[in-house]
Amino acid sequence: MADIARERVESWRSRMHAELHQNVVPFWMQHSLDRENGGYFNCLDRDGRRFDTKKHVWLQGRQVWMLSKLCGADPSRADTSRTEISRTEISRADISRADISRTDISRADNSRAGPSRAGPSRAGPSRAGPSRAGPSRADLLDAATLGARFLREHARREDDRVYFSLTRAGAPLALQRKIFAECFYVLAFAEYARASGDDSYRELALSELDAILRWIDDPTPLGRPRLRGQIATSELAVPMILLNLVSEVRGAPGSPTFGDREDYDRIEARCVASIRRHFDRERGLVFETIGADGSRLDSPEGRLINPGHVIECGWFLLDHARRVQDRELTRDALAMIDGALELGWDREHGGILYFLDSEGFSPQQLEWSMKLWWPHCEALVALLMAWRETGEARWFERFETVADWTFEHFPDPEFGEWFGYLDRRGVVSQRFKGGPYKGCFHVPRALFLCERELRAALGLG
Amino acid sequence: MADIARERVESWRSRMHAELHQNVVPFWMQHSLDRENGGYFNCLDRDGRRFDTKKHVWLQGRQVWMLSKLCGADPSRADTSRTEISRTEISRADISRADISRTDISRADNSRAGPSRAGPSRAGPSRAGPSRAGPSRADLLDAATLGARFLREHARREDDRVYFSLTRAGAPLALQRKIFAECFYVLAFAEYARASGDDSYRELALSELDAILRWIDDPTPLGRPRLRGQIATSELAVPMILLNLVSEVRGAPGSPTFGDREDYDRIEARCVASIRRHFDRERGLVFETIGADGSRLDSPEGRLINPGHVIECGWFLLDHARRVQDRELTRDALAMIDGALELGWDREHGGILYFLDSEGFSPQQLEWSMKLWWPHCEALVALLMAWRETGEARWFERFETVADWTFEHFPDPEFGEWFGYLDRRGVVSQRFKGGPYKGCFHVPRALFLCERELRAALGLG
Repeated sequence: MADIARERVESWRSRMHAELHQNVVPFWMQHSLDRENGGYFNCLDRDGRRFDTKKHVWLQGRQVWMLSKLCGADPSRADTSRTEISRTEISRADISRADISRTDISRADNSRAGPSRAGPSRAGPSRAGPSRAGPSRADLLDAATLGARFLREHARREDDRVYFSLTRAGAPLALQRKIFAECFYVLAFAEYARASGDDSYRELALSELDAILRWIDDPTPLGRPRLRGQIATSELAVPMILLNLVSEVRGAPGSPTFGDREDYDRIEARCVASIRRHFDRERGLVFETIGADGSRLDSPEGRLINPGHVIECGWFLLDHARRVQDRELTRDALAMIDGALELGWDREHGGILYFLDSEGFSPQQLEWSMKLWWPHCEALVALLMAWRETGEARWFERFETVADWTFEHFPDPEFGEWFGYLDRRGVVSQRFKGGPYKGCFHVPRALFLCERELRAALGLG
Repeated sequence: MADIARERVESWRSRMHAELHQNVVPFWMQHSLDRENGGYFNCLDRDGRRFDTKKHVWLQGRQVWMLSKLCGADPSRADTSRTEISRTEISRADISRADISRTDISRADNSRAGPSRAGPSRAGPSRAGPSRAGPSRADLLDAATLGARFLREHARREDDRVYFSLTRAGAPLALQRKIFAECFYVLAFAEYARASGDDSYRELALSELDAILRWIDDPTPLGRPRLRGQIATSELAVPMILLNLVSEVRGAPGSPTFGDREDYDRIEARCVASIRRHFDRERGLVFETIGADGSRLDSPEGRLINPGHVIECGWFLLDHARRVQDRELTRDALAMIDGALELGWDREHGGILYFLDSEGFSPQQLEWSMKLWWPHCEALVALLMAWRETGEARWFERFETVADWTFEHFPDPEFGEWFGYLDRRGVVSQRFKGGPYKGCFHVPRALFLCERELRAALGLG
């Protein structure tokens, strides 16, 4: 961090800490816990009100993971340099048409649409309520337990498949022909076992991981047989999430569970090789879908670029490369992050575009030009890791560009947490804080990891 | 039409005719026909260039239907009052970021985004090329045959399931756990049998319709067993498409196939009763999903309103009510169309919103605020039918409001056909003319039916 003033770094660290503990985690602790049935309500409107009682297993698992992770954070990290701001320093976010009065829907009064700016203030975090250090470890563990028990009781079938969604009481609602619900079940229990000290959750995580590994090799039991016209493909999401999963199951170097299975190294190496096949080094592009033989596919799926996904993948690889001391992998990961931001950053309106076609055709995804919260979260983490890895000021400067846009557009200073879905111009399109794909995960994970990187840079360990 | 000047009506009739035959049908005749493998390329970029060679069966079937329908149009309808406009009278549509040069993608130059206005001219149609009467009946039948044979050869499995998509050569690519591909197969062959005189296609349509009716009663063979937490629901799309399908299979009153199966009346009555259960008369709202017992569901699915869908359903009902002389059904259909337009019309930016939540929550669909071509197409038809049915000038005036916005925003005067996907402000979001869900169907059907209604109003039969 030679070229970056220490106070700039400290200012961002302090902001990440305050945003996490004052504005984000309290929202979930206050609104999501279902004390009656267990688990979490994850469909929460702007102000925390429930608009659906379904429980989406991806988000139940991710919230268990996040709360458990926060339990494990070193208590000495409690922030002491928090900057305070008054509520009036932050302009109220104007929100979209969806904010019309609930009883006024028949009038379709669209007059309230307008630019959403939470204010460009660098002074400090947006916040939901009175300043405080955030929930205690006991509260976090209690909340994590609420979700872990619910998942344990309701999410997994006898054949190890994990449901996609459940009713409020835990009855199955939907099952996907994919392995991602299973992955977040593993993620949750690996971390919860560490936080709670209850090893039975670790056993559940490991047995489910085994099932996932079997299905990756033979997806037939998932129920989507390959039709005659289909070719075998490789999806970036699979090796990427598996790499992250194995890393999470192992735990940090030095943890008691690290390296206790001989085949972890082999699985990780396989994931890395598979991800690299998606990378076109010459063009700096990572494709979401390629042929199983590594070939490029000239179709909308084959040309699809998801910059946020690539950036997330980039920091998974940086993290892995750091651990296994692979300099060439570090270089590839940096090139992936660089290429995805170069392509995905919207030079006209700012922010990261959701989908692009590598040859410039219109993506088929209707939401291609929207600005979603999670690619921005991933970019914050990736850019700080890239900076720490290289020591080059340009990565920190890029981090600040993305962070400025992110903090100007996503946080909700009035009710806490972040908006998730903005249109291309940065206007809030969906006002809810939690939905089927947004929960207590990307925002707090990014804030948590960004603070970790910034602390390390400051020599705070 | 007492209150509406005859020249206004004639001007719109002439415009619909010219748009259909000069700007829309030629685009598909020029770019979609696959002379090598049969069937149609339906993924076509703005200028007609293919961006994918997949063949989506919904669109193959719809194109066969449309071309066959145009074959059957009375040749005396050839337009004689066509207005001519020079190319320069229409401002070039500015298109979105997706229009960046294909080789320049790595620069992510977004500077070309801007409002898309095809010009507010009422002078005449946008067009793709030199003025002409459009393809001959022989050419249309030849093109319909190309698609019908391809579908007959490749689309249907032995168990009567119909694939969702095929490769260019006809090998199966995807199968949905829904009945809509089957419906468009029936639609195609019912009309193609009439256009070609080949009754074997009518037999195929009828046997597939029988299979659809069986699956509506027992969807088990579709492969999506009901999980314990799910409740039985009724989806508006099912009775709605079935009502249209039976009407199409019967043919127009006086046609040789009309009324040749005794149970048609019974099926239609069941569809109408089912659709009516989705209608909340007091609020004027039609819900996409209700409980199978008719109950309202307090969930995002249960609160979902799709105004374009309701408007389309409205004209299906108007058409049916006209035939069976049911005045009460006419009143309900008018109220549905009225309520959907009242709720769905965007008072700020104009155009019809794609999805809404009846209680004012943010819809979960990321594309909720986009302006899609097809709801506008359906509204043009519905409003003219409502006008003809009631004789009330307010329906014609509403038609003109929607038609003005539609013709200002969707047609592409440079390359023909219409853009399909605009953002809330009316800027083109996706530049392609054909994709997995847009083909040779809604635009030409609406123009064809609008001209039919306008001719009838003018006493041209």
